[in-house]
Amino acid sequence: MARPREFDRDAVLEQALQLFWSRGYEVTSMADLVEHLGVGRQSLYDTFGDKRALYLQALDRYKQAHGLPMPLLDGRPLRVGLRLLLSSAVDWLHDVTGGRGCMLVHAMTERGADDPEIRARFCANSDALVAQLEARLITARADGELGPHHDPRALARFLANTMNGLQLSARAGLDRAALMQIVDVALMALG
Amino acid sequence: MARPREFDRDAVLEQALQLFWSRGYEVTSMADLVEHLGVGRQSLYDTFGDKRALYLQALDRYKQAHGLPMPLLDGRPLRVGLRLLLSSAVDWLHDVTGGRGCMLVHAMTERGADDPEIRARFCANSDALVAQLEARLITARADGELGPHHDPRALARFLANTMNGLQLSARAGLDRAALMQIVDVALMALG
Repeated sequence: MARPREFDRDAVLEQALQLFWSRGYEVTSMADLVEHLGVGRQSLYDTFGDKRALYLQALDRYKQAHGLPMPLLDGRPLRVGLRLLLSSAVDWLHDVTGGRGCMLVHAMTERGADDPEIRARFCANSDALVAQLEARLITARADGELGPHHDPRALARFLANTMNGLQLSARAGLDRAALMQIVDVALMALG
Repeated sequence: MARPREFDRDAVLEQALQLFWSRGYEVTSMADLVEHLGVGRQSLYDTFGDKRALYLQALDRYKQAHGLPMPLLDGRPLRVGLRLLLSSAVDWLHDVTGGRGCMLVHAMTERGADDPEIRARFCANSDALVAQLEARLITARADGELGPHHDPRALARFLANTMNGLQLSARAGLDRAALMQIVDVALMALG
């Protein structure tokens, strides 16, 4: 038996991520992965486990490597930071995802109902986004940047909801300018 | 050759719709459809065409049978009508879709990148929603219910974006009360 070829685990995982992201889980077979990644089937199994295990690792890598630049929220006036974050989300939809939208949303839509581990990853990501937004809004309210009548948790969920909606609005054909109009209307809810 | 069994075309199409909606396009095979619908394979082909053709007809039926109650917008003050529409969207997410979310969103996520007819249906549905919202907002602005500085098109897209976002927020585990908080924050953008 030939010795398994050495390969760069991270590079191969990134390629698997890109393939799953573009095509989805179901239609991507182990044979597709073997062909696309240029790594033998047994090496793939030995390194990552089966297709589902590889998919879950690709999702985890996606979250680390292709997440939103949340530090944009820090060290800036609230509305400036939020607009930067939301406009970076719009740019990301166009430039990074190439019209594919968020891989976690794909995963949830395709497999979330049947796979608790996929649903857990999607929910954890949403919860983390809301928590980071809420923390910034609590600070802003304490600093007087946000009116005392605002509920930081509800506002944070609303902003995350807006970011989620942008994914589908982009897929419905809205261009960058139209998406930024949506962002500017959303920020009006902060009063 | 046996004469094809008579069957209720609409009832069978609704069953196909429910199966595709729950499981998605790729994993639902013609064999699954034959078994689930209780109709012979040849009868299915003769009546609906191949699996993709059946799927497209199921999507069209979905749009007619499971769409949003847009008439809620009419004959009421703007904000009352919008809140009714958005709360009916929240109810619909919980009660009608059973956590599955919108079938057109599923279709777009799973097949939209590869199938222009699916993308066209998704975009047409989004455009129609925005157009109906915009028409109501234009009337409201003319009647003084909405400030003259508001852009009805941008507001309409924002509201559609909010409704799209609710789908993903619901899937991220938010309950009805949390979704309605999002709706109430969104309506604050109308000033």
